[in-house]
Amino acid sequence: MSAIEVVLLYDYYGDLLTDRQKECFEMRYYQDLSLGEIAEELGISRQGVHENLNRAEALLRNMEAKTGCAGRDQACRKAVNAILEAASQLRQNEDPVVSALAQKIVSAAEGLEE
Amino acid sequence: MSAIEVVLLYDYYGDLLTDRQKECFEMRYYQDLSLGEIAEELGISRQGVHENLNRAEALLRNMEAKTGCAGRDQACRKAVNAILEAASQLRQNEDPVVSALAQKIVSAAEGLEE
Repeated sequence: MSAIEVVLLYDYYGDLLTDRQKECFEMRYYQDLSLGEIAEELGISRQGVHENLNRAEALLRNMEAKTGCAGRDQACRKAVNAILEAASQLRQNEDPVVSALAQKIVSAAEGLEE
Repeated sequence: MSAIEVVLLYDYYGDLLTDRQKECFEMRYYQDLSLGEIAEELGISRQGVHENLNRAEALLRNMEAKTGCAGRDQACRKAVNAILEAASQLRQNEDPVVSALAQKIVSAAEGLEE
């Protein structure tokens, strides 16, 4: 699994990790520190960092395998973007019935964006 | 938490439960059996059934509190329904540009329904 995929899963399941796992994960993937640098920063062994990262990534992968939550939400976002693009064009239609229905669609879709 | 809410969460997080927890949960909520009936069926104590159900429900609630996956997906489904309703009307519009864009919206939204 690529770093991008792991970081995406962290957005969904990160709160399920221990505080130490979160620290290691964020230093590794958000701050781009090496295992050695993280170990020094946290005052733990390089092996300890390695284990925390492995457990964190295994948990993230397992959660996605068991629930499919991230994949489903990504599919929803992709569909919402396609819907917004088409509805934005329709909203400019001169027929007021068309533009009102398009506005309804835009509002429903925008409600899903954070 | 109501039975309906617990059953909804089970759809999302059920695979994270142990086999025994799943058995107890499904007998309780899908087959509507009493704790005594489940205990007899599984050959375990009534207290054992009770504990399995409590742990299962606590896990489901904790997962939703930590990930919000079910709530997000339900919001997506609700929005998709509203979008489909409006887009279905637009699809019948005599202007081919309007009906083609509406068809795009319907297709994107329908792709999200299982």
